[in-house]
Amino acid sequence: MISDYPFLLVDIERCERNIADMAIKAKNAKLSFRPHFKTHQSRAIGRLFKKYGVDKITVSSIGMAEYFASDGWCDITIAFPFIPHTAERVNALAEKINLNLIFSSPRNLLAALDVISAKIGVFIEIDVGQNRSGILPEDTRTQALMLNLIADKSNFSFKGFLTHAGHSYSARGKSEIEKIHTEALTRLAKLRAFWKEQYPDIIISYGDTPTCSVADDFWGISEIRPGNFVFYDTMQLGIGSCNVSQIAAALIVPVVDVYPEKQKLIVHGGAVHLSKEKTAINGIDCYGLVSRFNNKVWDEPTPGAYVKSLSQEHGIIQYENGSLDDLKPGDLLAILPVHSCLTVDSMGAMYDFDGNVYDVLSKNNNHEA
Amino acid sequence: MISDYPFLLVDIERCERNIADMAIKAKNAKLSFRPHFKTHQSRAIGRLFKKYGVDKITVSSIGMAEYFASDGWCDITIAFPFIPHTAERVNALAEKINLNLIFSSPRNLLAALDVISAKIGVFIEIDVGQNRSGILPEDTRTQALMLNLIADKSNFSFKGFLTHAGHSYSARGKSEIEKIHTEALTRLAKLRAFWKEQYPDIIISYGDTPTCSVADDFWGISEIRPGNFVFYDTMQLGIGSCNVSQIAAALIVPVVDVYPEKQKLIVHGGAVHLSKEKTAINGIDCYGLVSRFNNKVWDEPTPGAYVKSLSQEHGIIQYENGSLDDLKPGDLLAILPVHSCLTVDSMGAMYDFDGNVYDVLSKNNNHEA
Repeated sequence: MISDYPFLLVDIERCERNIADMAIKAKNAKLSFRPHFKTHQSRAIGRLFKKYGVDKITVSSIGMAEYFASDGWCDITIAFPFIPHTAERVNALAEKINLNLIFSSPRNLLAALDVISAKIGVFIEIDVGQNRSGILPEDTRTQALMLNLIADKSNFSFKGFLTHAGHSYSARGKSEIEKIHTEALTRLAKLRAFWKEQYPDIIISYGDTPTCSVADDFWGISEIRPGNFVFYDTMQLGIGSCNVSQIAAALIVPVVDVYPEKQKLIVHGGAVHLSKEKTAINGIDCYGLVSRFNNKVWDEPTPGAYVKSLSQEHGIIQYENGSLDDLKPGDLLAILPVHSCLTVDSMGAMYDFDGNVYDVLSKNNNHEA
Repeated sequence: MISDYPFLLVDIERCERNIADMAIKAKNAKLSFRPHFKTHQSRAIGRLFKKYGVDKITVSSIGMAEYFASDGWCDITIAFPFIPHTAERVNALAEKINLNLIFSSPRNLLAALDVISAKIGVFIEIDVGQNRSGILPEDTRTQALMLNLIADKSNFSFKGFLTHAGHSYSARGKSEIEKIHTEALTRLAKLRAFWKEQYPDIIISYGDTPTCSVADDFWGISEIRPGNFVFYDTMQLGIGSCNVSQIAAALIVPVVDVYPEKQKLIVHGGAVHLSKEKTAINGIDCYGLVSRFNNKVWDEPTPGAYVKSLSQEHGIIQYENGSLDDLKPGDLLAILPVHSCLTVDSMGAMYDFDGNVYDVLSKNNNHEA
């Protein structure tokens, strides 16, 4: 089936269930569902979303927009502030599909005015607390400045405000996530109210995986854009966004050596495969949870076992109570990655239980785009 | 020249100087020089080493060994404990070149006995303090057990003991590195003395970038295998292995937005490009240092500027005293990565100042190997 280890295995059934659950939630809450495709970066996984009525998507780069446009997606938001050097490619793509860009400040917007000639949809990026990029929801003066610039460009069609409450990633548990969610929605509702008269059809675009997974109420929001939920991962488990049976991707690694006296084992699966992202599970920093693998599917994580450290190619697994003492070199284990987005990007390909390969765009292929 | 950003730029002159310096150091210390090629993973960069007399190399996977063997390298050590599922490829490659494997325990060695039929050179992995894999230098009983197993296999030729003092990566400053170095050499000298009568031509293979960069004396050592020194990086700068003018690789990123009031700017260059490795510089955790870029070469790092956090595609740069206030979206900056090995692997390609592209194996290509 697969010729080389480690490889990234995807449970397509779980993946589809995750998609279905989120699509149903969006429908029930009367939200437009524009999932972020940066997690899977795969045309084949993307096609699964069509079964659940998805016809518009979010991406994080022009290369990713081109990649999915070439597979028939014709309504795409690039949810990354405009980058001047992409102007030519943006103009070309916007001739073919409905393309939305986001602008994070007047400065960022000014950089587009002279170089974007195609018709595009425009979002102003709002910062509801992540403190990364965008305008504060209360800063209506700067918003007005940007709206005036947008109104003067006949090929720019103002769509609304877009935000990513990425600070939800530092939450632990449902109540912390809901607190962030409620605060964000309150601030966005005021923003919407402020501009509603002038822009009655304003879109408020929102949605990271933690809030979209946990919350049921999305008052004032028009569309959600979660991405990570398609696979979830150990970080989302730690945040409280998912349970372990929703995690749909695992890195399959061969055991290289076992040190029962240290309750430690070495696998071939390192930072170049999993990425160096870590998260706290039960108060212990880890680079992934560890499951038995029976050559087809993976089990529930082994209690007390976790990836303690990573070198470039080595993974060091710590475990308790002899739970993995029986393993020997060549046996396979499944590691539930901390951040599936980064693991997918690192691996550059995925496999399903039937051995089918799912190509991934990944930034390596961007060089050829 | 280059069509897409971010891209990884290599200063070939610095790179060659780094190679020359290490080759001269090895020659002066009468050491065999077997550089690790996992940092650059590039055939073209590999060829630069030939100018400095290098004719044997170290790699970290069978895929990497095949890749460099196909470019004419015919003496390769895979410095990663044997992985049973690679047996067929190991046998095939060992028919063509001198191939050395390492074994980290009797258990790891036993997994090879029935499946490795080709003639190979054999190293026993020794743990001099990294506490990752291998046998303690003082554990001569386990070494004897492994040596007996090796002696019984007519196609296994015992070469010696191999170690990686990777705990030098947690050192700060020359004296801490030298302390680790001296302790490792003392333990290895005793190991060598113990086995010298029985194995007079024993090889002691050693060498990580910090110790090989800082130390001048390598008594009792036969060969060194540093890898990272070819480019160095911000982590090595923090450890004290290099100075800033030896760092030979930088990620060129476009500015996306500037927030002068927060002394912060956003670039397109995130965890999928730099990797999520961080290091402390002047007591502050950072994901890279920041230099001005004049479209050809990069300057010294801007004092007080560093990559504070990374999302998948975003880099957030913090700076002091208005030093980067003049930047605008579309301007280019150079980020000196924390861990060049991981950045090279993430990017999958490098460019020199003349725009020539250097392909990188990276694990993505392993799928086709």
